[in-house]
Amino acid sequence: MNRKMTDPFLPPTRLLLGPGPSPVAPEVLAAMANPTIGHLDPAFIHLMDELKAMLQIAFNTKNDATFTVAGPGSVGMDACVLNMVEPGDKILIARNGVFGMRMSEVASRGGAVVVPLDFEWGTPVDAAAVDAALAQNKDVKFVAFVHSETSTGVLSDGKAIAAAAQKHGAMTIMDAVTSLGGVPVMVDEWGIDAVYSGTQKCLSCPPGLSPVSFSLRAIEHIKNRKTKVLSWFLDVTQVMAYWTGAGARAYHHTAPINALYGLHEALRRLLVEGLDNSFVRHRKAHLHLVAGLAKLGIDFLVDEKYRLPQLNAVKIPAGVNDPLVRSTLLNEFNIEIGAGLGPLAGKVWRIGLMGEGARIEHVDALLSALEKAMRARAA
Amino acid sequence: MNRKMTDPFLPPTRLLLGPGPSPVAPEVLAAMANPTIGHLDPAFIHLMDELKAMLQIAFNTKNDATFTVAGPGSVGMDACVLNMVEPGDKILIARNGVFGMRMSEVASRGGAVVVPLDFEWGTPVDAAAVDAALAQNKDVKFVAFVHSETSTGVLSDGKAIAAAAQKHGAMTIMDAVTSLGGVPVMVDEWGIDAVYSGTQKCLSCPPGLSPVSFSLRAIEHIKNRKTKVLSWFLDVTQVMAYWTGAGARAYHHTAPINALYGLHEALRRLLVEGLDNSFVRHRKAHLHLVAGLAKLGIDFLVDEKYRLPQLNAVKIPAGVNDPLVRSTLLNEFNIEIGAGLGPLAGKVWRIGLMGEGARIEHVDALLSALEKAMRARAA
Repeated sequence: MNRKMTDPFLPPTRLLLGPGPSPVAPEVLAAMANPTIGHLDPAFIHLMDELKAMLQIAFNTKNDATFTVAGPGSVGMDACVLNMVEPGDKILIARNGVFGMRMSEVASRGGAVVVPLDFEWGTPVDAAAVDAALAQNKDVKFVAFVHSETSTGVLSDGKAIAAAAQKHGAMTIMDAVTSLGGVPVMVDEWGIDAVYSGTQKCLSCPPGLSPVSFSLRAIEHIKNRKTKVLSWFLDVTQVMAYWTGAGARAYHHTAPINALYGLHEALRRLLVEGLDNSFVRHRKAHLHLVAGLAKLGIDFLVDEKYRLPQLNAVKIPAGVNDPLVRSTLLNEFNIEIGAGLGPLAGKVWRIGLMGEGARIEHVDALLSALEKAMRARAA
Repeated sequence: MNRKMTDPFLPPTRLLLGPGPSPVAPEVLAAMANPTIGHLDPAFIHLMDELKAMLQIAFNTKNDATFTVAGPGSVGMDACVLNMVEPGDKILIARNGVFGMRMSEVASRGGAVVVPLDFEWGTPVDAAAVDAALAQNKDVKFVAFVHSETSTGVLSDGKAIAAAAQKHGAMTIMDAVTSLGGVPVMVDEWGIDAVYSGTQKCLSCPPGLSPVSFSLRAIEHIKNRKTKVLSWFLDVTQVMAYWTGAGARAYHHTAPINALYGLHEALRRLLVEGLDNSFVRHRKAHLHLVAGLAKLGIDFLVDEKYRLPQLNAVKIPAGVNDPLVRSTLLNEFNIEIGAGLGPLAGKVWRIGLMGEGARIEHVDALLSALEKAMRARAA
């Protein structure tokens, strides 16, 4: 590029159909460009109250401890795991992709004893296997799992997994990063104790915030910890004093004001559309993609009944040059799709139809471009 | 307010003259509203390279490990402290305000043995006292201090404190949250090993990012840790693989794309103005405030030679109702100033002239409003 470092940066306009970030509505971008106000300004406190109420609707929960952590989804994972577990605690982690593996890493850094329960990548977490594993490990305090595995495009049965945990008296930690807004997340009905999500998936916000929610039981548990939470910044009891303090809000950290403007606008749009309508829209876009890819001879990694509508892991056809097709899509068609991760690298593409991306016209644009890119770049 | 939760949120327009966030230039707000692109998009990788180069200039460092952590300044503190210290390590923490106290809390949660060295709030950290304390505690591995104490408006001598640490073979961790862009921060010249800042002070960005820099020695130290960093998200060796990976960038977390657009624009504006010119502008605004407050009979908390130009802690005159004056400024004049924290609550106001706030016309607006507010609200 023929530019100086101090020239303004003008990003290209991409159609984001990868595993995230997803396309952001102009209204959300515009909201983020509103003038910054203080994090203790009464107007901002009011915004936080509305955000909390809208997140409660999105999570289907009455949890008072519902708010955003000021960092991307990975920070939400850190926040949930590190607040819940103490050194020596036993946690069963169901792993069927990258993010289950990452939870293990986070939990063991937090001093927990991880009981891994592995499933083949591309298959869901089996609640019966969770039940059986808990029957053999009586002292497990927590069960952690990924509801929507972004690395494989698999939806697991949150209700059944949580029920298995509850049967054995274990608390649940659920990763709903790619779920929220795309498929139902029933925090109260399922009895999830700690859940985190991200803004850059089906909420169609820029990355940088992690919505979280903790059950009353989880908050009691955290208040009664024997050891302090390892990270001061992530200590939920302190963050709560800022988000839900009755009367005076205690200063904890400086909230990312403008990012929260964006999330407010995105949640507002989601609720105006209606959660159910959003789920239907994601489903329709997914089915349109399924039909179109079939015509191109492209199969799905995941069995039909476990497929996430918003994250489609599809097998790269034999003889197709993976990186060349993706770079052609990006450079010639301005469309981003995702590569495979870990054992799926080079074997799958990950096509995200998340939030604003879940529209028929975007699927059509991708199908047309993909056909041309594969033809031009056949190895 | 007569509004529904799902109405768009329209923030008031405030003149932000508190301890942060500071006023954000329209160009920076506009940059954040650019279309989101992927965190592995070549165009975004190029943006990260430019950000790194501009941060190196701002920090006056050649450190390769110079980047932003995806969270506010408090996360930068967590990142620096938790990467450097291991359980059992002895760290001397110079404390002359809220943020030195917070560092103690962060370090002890990380398992470090904190050797506190306290100074009266409103006075600087005394390098000779650091030297003496290190002479008595031979096994101290780290010295941590706050360069610009946002809670008191005090500037400490980073060069002298770092020299004392080096004399005793200790590594240094410096909080430069309120420093960067407002007063010189000479990371290499002073020999600082780990430094963190924030975007919402003299860089005049919305809050949400923490620029950090680690010396080569710090990175070697971190690579040779006996224990893993407690937070997976904050593990610098992993974040580095994303920010500075030679060749292929390793996916670690999803970067807050649009916030980084904003920081790019803010740094660009700072470098076009010139660091030295920015320091002079902050100084001039400060002196204008000093002169104006003298006419109102308002004194400074801090001795003249230790005053931060960008953060002015001033004594609330006797008989003045603190909260009423601040709420009058906010509600009637749309001007935010800050309250005192901890032992200074009710005793001082904190007037920030940071980044875009450091302009004569803003000082004039504040002086005029403050005079009226104090007259109207005399207790």
